[in-house]
Amino acid sequence: MVTDPEPNPGIGPTSQKGKGRDKTDLRRGVSRRGLLLGAGGTGLAVTAGAAFGLGRGTAPQPDPEDLLHGSQKIDFYGHRQAGIETPAQAHAVLIAMDLNKGIEGEDARRLLRLLTDDAARLTQGLPALADTEPELAARPARLTVTFGFGRHLVKLLNPDKVPDWLKDLPEFEIDDLDPQLCGGDLMLQLCGDDPIALAHARRMLLKDARAYASPRWMQDGFRNARGTQSEGSTMRNLFGQVDETVQPSKDEDGKEFAVWGHPPAGSSPSLRPWIEGGTSLVVRLISMDLDGWDELARSGKEASIGRDLRVGAPLTGTAEHDEPDFDAKTPLGFPVIEDFAHIRRAHSQAPEEQILRRGYNYDRPPQGDGRISDTGLVFLSYQADVTRQFLPIQQRLAEGDRLNEWTTPIGSAVFAIPPGCAPGGYIGDSL
Amino acid sequence: MVTDPEPNPGIGPTSQKGKGRDKTDLRRGVSRRGLLLGAGGTGLAVTAGAAFGLGRGTAPQPDPEDLLHGSQKIDFYGHRQAGIETPAQAHAVLIAMDLNKGIEGEDARRLLRLLTDDAARLTQGLPALADTEPELAARPARLTVTFGFGRHLVKLLNPDKVPDWLKDLPEFEIDDLDPQLCGGDLMLQLCGDDPIALAHARRMLLKDARAYASPRWMQDGFRNARGTQSEGSTMRNLFGQVDETVQPSKDEDGKEFAVWGHPPAGSSPSLRPWIEGGTSLVVRLISMDLDGWDELARSGKEASIGRDLRVGAPLTGTAEHDEPDFDAKTPLGFPVIEDFAHIRRAHSQAPEEQILRRGYNYDRPPQGDGRISDTGLVFLSYQADVTRQFLPIQQRLAEGDRLNEWTTPIGSAVFAIPPGCAPGGYIGDSL
Ligand code: HEM
Ligand code: HEM
Repeated sequence: MVTDPEPNPGIGPTSQKGKGRDKTDLRRGVSRRGLLLGAGGTGLAVTAGAAFGLGRGTAPQPDPEDLLHGSQKIDFYGHRQAGIETPAQAHAVLIAMDLNKGIEGEDARRLLRLLTDDAARLTQGLPALADTEPELAARPARLTVTFGFGRHLVKLLNPDKVPDWLKDLPEFEIDDLDPQLCGGDLMLQLCGDDPIALAHARRMLLKDARAYASPRWMQDGFRNARGTQSEGSTMRNLFGQVDETVQPSKDEDGKEFAVWGHPPAGSSPSLRPWIEGGTSLVVRLISMDLDGWDELARSGKEASIGRDLRVGAPLTGTAEHDEPDFDAKTPLGFPVIEDFAHIRRAHSQAPEEQILRRGYNYDRPPQGDGRISDTGLVFLSYQADVTRQFLPIQQRLAEGDRLNEWTTPIGSAVFAIPPGCAPGGYIGDSL
Repeated sequence: MVTDPEPNPGIGPTSQKGKGRDKTDLRRGVSRRGLLLGAGGTGLAVTAGAAFGLGRGTAPQPDPEDLLHGSQKIDFYGHRQAGIETPAQAHAVLIAMDLNKGIEGEDARRLLRLLTDDAARLTQGLPALADTEPELAARPARLTVTFGFGRHLVKLLNPDKVPDWLKDLPEFEIDDLDPQLCGGDLMLQLCGDDPIALAHARRMLLKDARAYASPRWMQDGFRNARGTQSEGSTMRNLFGQVDETVQPSKDEDGKEFAVWGHPPAGSSPSLRPWIEGGTSLVVRLISMDLDGWDELARSGKEASIGRDLRVGAPLTGTAEHDEPDFDAKTPLGFPVIEDFAHIRRAHSQAPEEQILRRGYNYDRPPQGDGRISDTGLVFLSYQADVTRQFLPIQQRLAEGDRLNEWTTPIGSAVFAIPPGCAPGGYIGDSL
């Protein structure tokens, strides 16, 4: 059913429908070069400069709209779903739904066919089938729609394929979960660089789902706007920290192993995907007490994480990607990176303890409770196996992490991420 | 007190503090060229291409970060406040506050001095004085902070200067106002292209205001992300309409007259600013019933506004900026633009009936009331005189506008916008 043996390549060539070959080829060139040079401002810039004839001067004059990042598209179809290894877009909208009463396997498949079709169109800048605001679909700006399945849905589709780890996380001491922000049968993760394209996609998908499923929780989030910093820079969270430095994605092998379950070349396999091309997503909505955090001196903030605030370097180093030295001691014999520093507790203790983090900030007006903001992190992590990769880290953090004083998980959910699909198929068709 | 006789010029040269002359000059060039070519993707692109030596090849190699739009700054100081004629940024955050009990004129001036200082720094990419997350201030991405004063605050500062129009709008039949979304003594309009810079600025300003004032309402909004469409394109609202086509700003004279109260050359004056360099802001939070709207056929949607959806052309024309012909009739003798079409009712009936609209969309998860979204428009309009310019339009719309069937004002506020200030001064110092 899936014909493309390659993983989703990220920003792909644009659809050729209704476009002359020349234009398509030019745009394909734009994407590839943009990626090489670090798209965003810089990559876009250089390719645009070239296209305007400032460079070699031989390129045909393209439609200037095509040079704006609003027209950039991420392939929808593929062996794996987009929105996971895709360099994180600026905005995210998570929609968790529960299937309506009486929905059976065949209905669920109908729903997935419908939503797959919407997602395939909207991500490519085409209106959904019954789109009521087609003009709002024209500039997808790297829109991706990633489907996550809760236990109930996988069971409906194929009871033999329910992974062991597909269930609520155990309750942790630190949790203060609102049941209305937990769980869900079907989760759609929408990411994109343009808030209007996202708002429109949210609406179209919810509309088409309406007869089959009802929203359970929704959560919006943001990172830096596209083009404000060079692509590949690490994001900052609203504590001001450089966040997502250490990732399994540093080398291709690491990501293949941690996210997709493929053993690195030459090693004995120790992880397997629940289904080829699939993975898992853990969502933790974590409220951050900025008022409390800001009572800490800068040194206290840095000690609590084990990294500096300026560039995100470990306290034993000077640059962001320096390897932390967890054995280093102060002249008085205390560990430089404290015992309960976040990075010491979160650091991988076994080869399989690796997760791909891809979080988003949230910040909304307070609910009249005296705080001046309601701020936090939409923590998203992908891993082949929740139990073996995510849980031990979360357990250590729950037992002792200086950050716990200012952070509180208020929502939690686990989803199975099925493989992508080929044109004509639908997400879930391999179950 | 104000030394700069020129209006705020929009994207200005960057501060020279701590920068070599070369770099500053180069950046000044970037801004100017970016403006000329329509900044965003295209302008940024061309200048970046040139700077990378793809063009004439003689420009010095700049810090690549400077080419990203995160470093773009809008001048804060000036005769007029920024954020009004500034080409609209992608995101907005409105914060309306009430002065705490017992706050007198001198306290209010202290508050304004504090917030002016914060705004002057944050908009230039510098941390606020007691900034707890200075790293989040580094990329302002055209951040502007515009101050609006409610009646109570102007009275405290100078009872002789309270403009007649500075009061709640009369209640309209169409209104369904939530008192918690109305009014306010002090309003800060934050606009910028980066949501992290905005979240940080919101927090710093609220923190410094805390001893003097408490939040009354806050409202976030968005337009298309920077660089997704060519600069100067008209925005779309979430009904899918091209919105803000007709503006007094079409020619400089129009804006000078409508927003700042200066009569066009050669005409007899008929408007005056309440204070030189000042203007007014009307905020209307308008909820949009998308579910109802989408039951309309496309032709019905177009009739209700009097323009097409594809490019926003009047129904009597073919291009967005064609002049509507309000006298045109169909073969059967009916007006092509219906009697209760929004643009007919909103259209200026007198030379002074002109307003500068600068609205933002909002879209948030529904409040569990069965709707699939909670969507609307943060309608913002600037005019020298609310009573003579805004009110007659709003009155006609309230009495008969097809759009009323799907739109409901839920919040409303009027603010006096004082002039800008010079370095060393503060917003409000001319009162
Ligand atoms: C609001 C809550 C959290 C904040 C503010 C936060 C912040 C950070 C920061 C600043 C770093 C250092 C830079 C980096 O490598 O990214 C870090 C590292 C890390 N965090 Fe968190 N984090 C939070 C929650 C979590 C949770 C819930 C988990 C998983 C259960 C987690 C897992 C990790 C891991 C695995 C690392 C890398 C550790 C290493 O090997 O150095 N974090 N976090
Ligand atoms: C959610 C509510 C509203 C929506 C969706 C909306 C939408 C539109 C649209 C699509 C246009 C045509 C294009 C343009 O010139 O911008 C327009 C024009 C206009 N609107 Fe609105 N509008 C709303 C509320 C208001 C309000 C409250 C006012 C003022 C009281 C207003 C004043 C105007 C004016 C003055 C024009 C230009 C009319 C002309 O001379 O052609 N609108 N509006």
